[in-house]
Amino acid sequence: MADPQKQLDASSATSKNEEKKREKALRKEMKAAETAAKQALAAQQAAADDYAVPFYGSLPLNQSQSRPRLSRVEIDSLSARSGETVTFRARVQTSRAQGNKMVFLNLRQRTHSVQALVTVTPEKVSKQMVKWVAGLADESIVLVQGTVKTSPEPIKSASVQDVEVLVSQIHLISGIDGRLPFSLEDASRPDTEELPSEADAEVRQFNRVLLDTRLNNRVVDLRTNTNLAIFTLQSAIGHLFRQYLHGHGFTEIHSPKLQGAATESGASVFKVNYFKGNAFLAQSPQLAKQMAIAADFERVYEIGPVFRAEDSNTPRHMTEFMGLDLEMTIEEHYHEAMELLDGLLISVFRGLRETYHREIAAVAAQFPADGFKWREGPEGTLKLTFRQAIDMLVEDGVPRESLDDINTENEKRLGRLVKAKYDTDYFIIDKFPLELRPFYTMPDPEDPTLSNSYDFFMRGEEILSGAQRIHNPALLVEKMRSKGVDPDSMKTYVDAFRMGCAPHGGGGIGLERVLMLFLKLNNIRRASMFPRDPKRLEP
Amino acid sequence: MADPQKQLDASSATSKNEEKKREKALRKEMKAAETAAKQALAAQQAAADDYAVPFYGSLPLNQSQSRPRLSRVEIDSLSARSGETVTFRARVQTSRAQGNKMVFLNLRQRTHSVQALVTVTPEKVSKQMVKWVAGLADESIVLVQGTVKTSPEPIKSASVQDVEVLVSQIHLISGIDGRLPFSLEDASRPDTEELPSEADAEVRQFNRVLLDTRLNNRVVDLRTNTNLAIFTLQSAIGHLFRQYLHGHGFTEIHSPKLQGAATESGASVFKVNYFKGNAFLAQSPQLAKQMAIAADFERVYEIGPVFRAEDSNTPRHMTEFMGLDLEMTIEEHYHEAMELLDGLLISVFRGLRETYHREIAAVAAQFPADGFKWREGPEGTLKLTFRQAIDMLVEDGVPRESLDDINTENEKRLGRLVKAKYDTDYFIIDKFPLELRPFYTMPDPEDPTLSNSYDFFMRGEEILSGAQRIHNPALLVEKMRSKGVDPDSMKTYVDAFRMGCAPHGGGGIGLERVLMLFLKLNNIRRASMFPRDPKRLEP
Repeated sequence: MADPQKQLDASSATSKNEEKKREKALRKEMKAAETAAKQALAAQQAAADDYAVPFYGSLPLNQSQSRPRLSRVEIDSLSARSGETVTFRARVQTSRAQGNKMVFLNLRQRTHSVQALVTVTPEKVSKQMVKWVAGLADESIVLVQGTVKTSPEPIKSASVQDVEVLVSQIHLISGIDGRLPFSLEDASRPDTEELPSEADAEVRQFNRVLLDTRLNNRVVDLRTNTNLAIFTLQSAIGHLFRQYLHGHGFTEIHSPKLQGAATESGASVFKVNYFKGNAFLAQSPQLAKQMAIAADFERVYEIGPVFRAEDSNTPRHMTEFMGLDLEMTIEEHYHEAMELLDGLLISVFRGLRETYHREIAAVAAQFPADGFKWREGPEGTLKLTFRQAIDMLVEDGVPRESLDDINTENEKRLGRLVKAKYDTDYFIIDKFPLELRPFYTMPDPEDPTLSNSYDFFMRGEEILSGAQRIHNPALLVEKMRSKGVDPDSMKTYVDAFRMGCAPHGGGGIGLERVLMLFLKLNNIRRASMFPRDPKRLEP
Repeated sequence: MADPQKQLDASSATSKNEEKKREKALRKEMKAAETAAKQALAAQQAAADDYAVPFYGSLPLNQSQSRPRLSRVEIDSLSARSGETVTFRARVQTSRAQGNKMVFLNLRQRTHSVQALVTVTPEKVSKQMVKWVAGLADESIVLVQGTVKTSPEPIKSASVQDVEVLVSQIHLISGIDGRLPFSLEDASRPDTEELPSEADAEVRQFNRVLLDTRLNNRVVDLRTNTNLAIFTLQSAIGHLFRQYLHGHGFTEIHSPKLQGAATESGASVFKVNYFKGNAFLAQSPQLAKQMAIAADFERVYEIGPVFRAEDSNTPRHMTEFMGLDLEMTIEEHYHEAMELLDGLLISVFRGLRETYHREIAAVAAQFPADGFKWREGPEGTLKLTFRQAIDMLVEDGVPRESLDDINTENEKRLGRLVKAKYDTDYFIIDKFPLELRPFYTMPDPEDPTLSNSYDFFMRGEEILSGAQRIHNPALLVEKMRSKGVDPDSMKTYVDAFRMGCAPHGGGGIGLERVLMLFLKLNNIRRASMFPRDPKRLEP
């Protein structure tokens, strides 16, 4: 507030007109000060009336001012805490006022939620407190203290159904600045092509949230049960992958993504400004992992980003994705590598089904799918040769002359044929034509048009590509030349094989593809936290 | 061979001169054919004499021609196999002929080696076979069959000292094309500043292999015991890191390295040609991991490459390295995050010492160092405030006015002071001045010139940087502006906090730095399989 005396002193040195203006302004200011004082007094009186003042309101920004070390609990544990007074941090999923004396809150921690009740109670919860709570925006983060009470009937709207929390204190930790782009309820609706016919008009007009809207507001989208489950499963796949390989004598390596040359394969590559020259982003750790084999690492794997500068705007392509790559020496035959990869994938599938059924069910609630099927036991994984696969397609009516390669459409068709005939969503195609594979692929020993290479499929889509590699430098150089790759541009790679290298093979798995196809998410972007495609670099 | 009759027919149609030339050529050719026939006959006779022909020689290129499923053993297991006939694949580390009837081989599988003996034996090992074996180049890969025999005295040159192998068959799987850039023996010599004074002239002239030569020929360099141990330890650090975090409720995430904006910090960033526009390589997963927190992931970690376009040619900088990053919500105080990071690092140190002492010893044989020391038990890790650290340096004679920040030299000095006073190679500095930290760092609640941030040190070098982050969008925008960062350039990041975000903190660890400093490798490139710096993009 300005000092009136100062204002008056200043006015004496100015013209009459100005003096009048000043006087007017001064009066206005004094009036405002009076109003403010009255309001402050009213607020003070209201606060004095409000016995609940210490029990609610906004907390100051947490800058680690203090550390009382009060124990906080997880909502998931509340069923076992009936009668206890607990403190916990949660999001306000929804709030619903009943009159001006009671508010029901649905409080959420990740995928767990509990009902909480704020109700006017003498000397504890005031009307003002109830009003404040009723005004909390959805998705606000609050610190709650309350008593856990057994509920007379199951609370269907919460994941914890047998207890509720009688709130004694509730403070705002972090509010919402602006409007939510969509509600979590809308973002969680089942992704069915058609709404059920029995859906009434009200249901039919429920918002669906488009994938692009979700991705533009990914931080809110990721809070749904479905997304929390998807990324728990993504983390689990990596964990199961490593666990298996760790148990089979593999060493984890990290290879550079910045490369001096852009020559690995036909796929386009991103160019990087590298000081005064250029570098290129690795399209796979292929060269590095083979060099690790030439360096006697025997069995290596890497989990890392791979980059593809292909301008493909499809539901199954991204410009950056996670490669689960491995490479191993073989003693006699490349099927040693193929069989290890098969064992690895089955161990991943099994691990998911055994330990993460809750998450799989959560995703299925939004993305309905038949459970992923694979064959185990003595019959093992179905293995077809490329020729057998072609024959199946021809038998089904696809013209043989269109089958030099198997395109995406025919892959899916083959997946359906295999599912119908062998009842499996997972199979291997072996012995691809040499000309369809990269230069480092080992040719078949008998038929020079074939190669020692394989692809693995889930629900009719390729998730793994692998092969025996050429470990002889002369043959490697010959194959590079025949594919138009200049051996000099990859000298350090070729040289690695001149210093002696054991026969070896391996493969690369697309993490997001495995996740998408296991869960039938229908778009690879749903399997990536912050997906990248030719048109998306944010968030 | 040419057909002489054809040649004669052809000559009749040409001039005399040409006829003479042809005749001469013909005679030469016939002579050559005769010689070849004689040689072939001699070879045939020699082969007929050589009863050992099936037992040695080059194998055809392994293209997976067959799969006999013969069991192969590891050299490491040979001590327990005395009397057995075994088959194994190995590299020829060295070969030493004694006369023309006997060759000693040192055969190696990774860090394990055994002595093998090829000695003329009627009907089994021929002179020709011994000669062929003696001619095998070092680092050739062979398939050996032989009988394990207890050695009368310990074989000091091999890791398996109590048995040797009497070779009955030996075939070349992969030879050497060209010369080795250096011998593994040279590459394995201790990296001491000074040769021991008792070293004689012969020892003194042993080659040292320069780091650049090693890196240019990394595939051979990586075969040394030291390097195999270093990368086993690198893999172990990642494993221990994940194991600890998995046990503490963390989810592994993968964030994109391709970014739409280049605004995270002052550090330079690599620009990528992205279709018709530009992208930038992530300098850390900072933004993504904080957004995961805003998306309710609660505790996340990532292991992935980070990119720094700084033209620093020092022993401690690379343009690409592995970041071990984590972020977690805090309930009351950022020390919750700092303490979790401390527990994590101690669990890594302890895991290395307990499980990998053999590898640590192997590295110490080449890079002598005092064992890495840290404090455990009730006293716990030493924690200094930035002010206390400055005071220690001032007390040691560093002018206070030069200590607005602690430069590399003073960091090392501080490391020595701490080691002398507290007998630890590992400590934490807390409460850095705010102006030294990135815009997203939470200010101290009382002193606005300080911040809730910390660095962790090993042997006087920073290996981790972390802090409480600003979770309030208004304060974040203010701090961005004050550091010259345009909030609009990072809109999706700022918006994440508008949708409510819990208080949180975390940190980023440089994997190669931890590895380098734990082992005292003195150059970060030794801790990276294929290091990248401003001048190196190969191999």
